[in-house]
Amino acid sequence: MVQKGVVIVSGGMDSVTLLYDLHKKGFDLHALTFDYGQKHVKEIECAKKNCKALGVPQTIIDMKFFSSLAKSALTVKEEEVPEGNYTDENMKQTVVPNRNMVMLSIAASFALSNRRDYLFYGAHSGDHAIYPDCRPPFIQAMKNAFNLCDWNRVRLEVPYIKLDKAEILRIGIPLGVPYEDTWTCYKGGKDACGVCGSCTERLEAFRIIGYEDPLTYTKR
Amino acid sequence: MVQKGVVIVSGGMDSVTLLYDLHKKGFDLHALTFDYGQKHVKEIECAKKNCKALGVPQTIIDMKFFSSLAKSALTVKEEEVPEGNYTDENMKQTVVPNRNMVMLSIAASFALSNRRDYLFYGAHSGDHAIYPDCRPPFIQAMKNAFNLCDWNRVRLEVPYIKLDKAEILRIGIPLGVPYEDTWTCYKGGKDACGVCGSCTERLEAFRIIGYEDPLTYTKR
Repeated sequence: MVQKGVVIVSGGMDSVTLLYDLHKKGFDLHALTFDYGQKHVKEIECAKKNCKALGVPQTIIDMKFFSSLAKSALTVKEEEVPEGNYTDENMKQTVVPNRNMVMLSIAASFALSNRRDYLFYGAHSGDHAIYPDCRPPFIQAMKNAFNLCDWNRVRLEVPYIKLDKAEILRIGIPLGVPYEDTWTCYKGGKDACGVCGSCTERLEAFRIIGYEDPLTYTKR
Repeated sequence: MVQKGVVIVSGGMDSVTLLYDLHKKGFDLHALTFDYGQKHVKEIECAKKNCKALGVPQTIIDMKFFSSLAKSALTVKEEEVPEGNYTDENMKQTVVPNRNMVMLSIAASFALSNRRDYLFYGAHSGDHAIYPDCRPPFIQAMKNAFNLCDWNRVRLEVPYIKLDKAEILRIGIPLGVPYEDTWTCYKGGKDACGVCGSCTERLEAFRIIGYEDPLTYTKR
């Protein structure tokens, strides 16, 4: 029997790899993409393009109200997106407080309403240092909450939680993921900036596996 | 030092009692009210009126997108709100899957963004039979998740979790809560219907404590 799942697709390289990975494995998928007022709206376009390419139905959830409630450098116009490595203290400015719990809980609601048993989420180990809500103990706490929130169950699956971005690329490249149609940069430019924490981490992952990133960058 | 809290105020008798209770105790409060496309919008008007009366700032969060994602008799126009006691199996139709986790997680995001340490929520024991996401194990799971979701902590407090509606009235009446300005009915009428599960439970609570409900009902 085909398993039905909901997959959160931001349009970044991790969630798009997950989309291709699950599609290949034969899941009946419905993709959810959250528009929470992020400056990097280009990632939403990438999410759309990839869902369409695979024929996966997608719902874009308008969460723009969120940017007025929760302040962070990713959503507040006056705040500059910090540059440099993710390990730097200032990258904590990019945390939208509790964003992931909000997205996961809405996605679970959608899964429960539509009788889809699985909820897939592409958090990975590279996020752990900066984002508390990408860490395994948080994921475990959410799994517990999902076991108790409804008469029906939704199974949260986070298959890349122990992988880093380079390992994710090693899954995605053989699957033919079009990485030129994935967006990682936190700035809202026409091309990826190549210097923000997110670009730095992505370029490093491609360097590690010895594969050229097909995306156009302003600066490498 | 005055403690800062966020309180979820639906406009029902439980959350409005909680608002008056916390206000009396001296908390610096900010109220959040969720508009999730419910038919009983009158409760939002009641929430506004009570926040204004106490001078508590209030933010109404537009969650109307939610009604298109999560189906239930409270939000889908074609579905009839069931009548009778809450213990009846058909009242499970009123469950909006995972609604409470969505509201709690957004409220936590707001609290974290605005450096408010406490999040207050008026779930009570009468909800337990029907709503899995009002039960103590779910509340405990959410407390655990809130301890892990951010670098800062938000403390979830659910002071009425072991009380029933009659016990809540025993707190609220001495505080002078204007129960004529609280809305409990699940139908969208001008007056409360008096026959839906929610009205039945409320009228029973007033009967138990021997106090007349000041609200106007179509049928008692």
